[in-house]
Amino acid sequence: MNKHGGYFGENKENIIDFSININPLGVSDKVLNKINKLLNEVISYPEISTNSYIEILASELNIKKHEVIIGNGAIGLLYLFSNALKPNKVMIVNPTFNEYNRAFSLCGSEIINYKVHDFNDFEINIKDLIQNLDTHKPDVLVLCNPNNPTGKYIDDKRIEKILKKLSELNAILFIDESFIDFTYRKGVNYLINKYSMFILRSMTKFYAIPGLRLGFGIGSSFIIEKLKEYNIPWSVNSISLGIIETLLNDYEYINKTFTWYKNEKDYLYKELKKVDYFKVYESSTNFFLCKLKKGNSIDLNNYLLKNNIFVRTCEDFIGLDDKFIRLGIRKHNENARLINALKDYKTEY
Amino acid sequence: MNKHGGYFGENKENIIDFSININPLGVSDKVLNKINKLLNEVISYPEISTNSYIEILASELNIKKHEVIIGNGAIGLLYLFSNALKPNKVMIVNPTFNEYNRAFSLCGSEIINYKVHDFNDFEINIKDLIQNLDTHKPDVLVLCNPNNPTGKYIDDKRIEKILKKLSELNAILFIDESFIDFTYRKGVNYLINKYSMFILRSMTKFYAIPGLRLGFGIGSSFIIEKLKEYNIPWSVNSISLGIIETLLNDYEYINKTFTWYKNEKDYLYKELKKVDYFKVYESSTNFFLCKLKKGNSIDLNNYLLKNNIFVRTCEDFIGLDDKFIRLGIRKHNENARLINALKDYKTEY
Repeated sequence: MNKHGGYFGENKENIIDFSININPLGVSDKVLNKINKLLNEVISYPEISTNSYIEILASELNIKKHEVIIGNGAIGLLYLFSNALKPNKVMIVNPTFNEYNRAFSLCGSEIINYKVHDFNDFEINIKDLIQNLDTHKPDVLVLCNPNNPTGKYIDDKRIEKILKKLSELNAILFIDESFIDFTYRKGVNYLINKYSMFILRSMTKFYAIPGLRLGFGIGSSFIIEKLKEYNIPWSVNSISLGIIETLLNDYEYINKTFTWYKNEKDYLYKELKKVDYFKVYESSTNFFLCKLKKGNSIDLNNYLLKNNIFVRTCEDFIGLDDKFIRLGIRKHNENARLINALKDYKTEY
Repeated sequence: MNKHGGYFGENKENIIDFSININPLGVSDKVLNKINKLLNEVISYPEISTNSYIEILASELNIKKHEVIIGNGAIGLLYLFSNALKPNKVMIVNPTFNEYNRAFSLCGSEIINYKVHDFNDFEINIKDLIQNLDTHKPDVLVLCNPNNPTGKYIDDKRIEKILKKLSELNAILFIDESFIDFTYRKGVNYLINKYSMFILRSMTKFYAIPGLRLGFGIGSSFIIEKLKEYNIPWSVNSISLGIIETLLNDYEYINKTFTWYKNEKDYLYKELKKVDYFKVYESSTNFFLCKLKKGNSIDLNNYLLKNNIFVRTCEDFIGLDDKFIRLGIRKHNENARLINALKDYKTEY
């Protein structure tokens, strides 16, 4: 069982949960109002084609309707992709979100775990990756950008180098941009007509609605077509579909989020760097990977839990171990509480 | 694309939709209140194991926790079953819900379409079915009970005869009880320890929440285990999970539903029998299959649409054709409007 998804133990209501990477500003009032209106519509099935909502997304993203698919969370589309395409050989750039491995294993793919290393600060070496692509010749390369849990971002120029190699190999890029909203960038949508690729996008993290499940995928039309062939009818509930337009147009919330994000990210990074038993990795998104120079993440999490704080230990990520934790950026007072607790901890060993 | 899921054309808000088999009393106030409370929780991921909700269902159904799984609508569990078990050979009792065929075809199963016939009023002949099981030796038999779209119900004694034969063949029964709530019966849960079987249940039809997506499955533990191995994390949204207990304990709504159901079913059946160009089949659930003695279902639906009424034509069901329509039982004034429109139609040919 994946341990991701937040704290579900005792005393849940009092725990400050740094293990999740969700916008801590919560659901906006505009979205809550819209949901209240949509409650009258749950007596109907969701639109089976989801065409009305695909139109909204396509127009917002400036792509064509047959290049978009909506899913029951980004993860629903990951499993739809693996099940529809059943690639023989998949290369995954690790350490990264565990579910890629599970999804492609379940559909029978051979998995090649390419690793990006701590000694390089988890920065990808494109030349080395391309050499490995040449050696292993996978059918699909899986890349999370910015990457969970390292926070590392690969810019468009380097992405296109990878795409060129994949194109030579007649292979597909599966790129998970679930955390792209926090990079101030738009992602690589504009490349879907030039290369064989599928871009995964989440709407639950930036808009703080993981309970509702909502994601979408953008891709080369032959991939979207294949995914639709395998899609499960009514897989996205009518509330999630019904709020898409409200989410995209909620500029007040979007601006508020970026103001919080800028301030708190700078603050938390600066403070985490001061924790002397920590190494903090620079991040392009709303969480930080940290390495413990002493002790282990399990002990630290147990200590923090006594202070009603929960963090994501990373021993289950391929290429990481019990020296690593991941911290989602939260509200100021919560971040400050975390920093204080971390500072107190150093006295214990 | 499946044409099921209700009317989505122009003038939707004025159409009385007899094509869906949803409780027309709508969502109960108790459930709406509960949903409003749950909106605060959409900022968290749904519980990944869904164990808290499995416990509620297991206790209500008087079975063990490892014999239940919750799904993103009953249909989500159909696709999970086909994908997890990938049976070589599947026999489907037709005419029935089209998605069984699609789900098992997509996972590569060979499909054997066993047909129940109009000349037998769509009543199943168990002896003949058992002979066919012996001949074809499928790995899975798919049965919808009560059956969509015929409304026919197979009692427990006959189900157990089928199960005995399947047991001899080392085969599994996949039985869809999505409409069992309207039969006043509890289904065949009590047999899951004696035979290899999976029972599909929907919570969207009786409780009028198809927009939210919620279903569950009950089965022999080895089947549930296999399904969990393939299950997609966070596939059920937190609102659907959070209302399960409220739905099950909403006795006021349940009683109101049965009062409406009894009255309107008797009324509609009696009136449909009077329509002289119709044959109405007896039904054990909340819809009626009807056969046109003259004309065709497409023309009839076009005529009814002019009266803001939409019905389910059945030409896409294996074993049916453009002579058949299916009518969900609705509220009294709506049923009366349908009957009047149908009575007027006979003057047109």
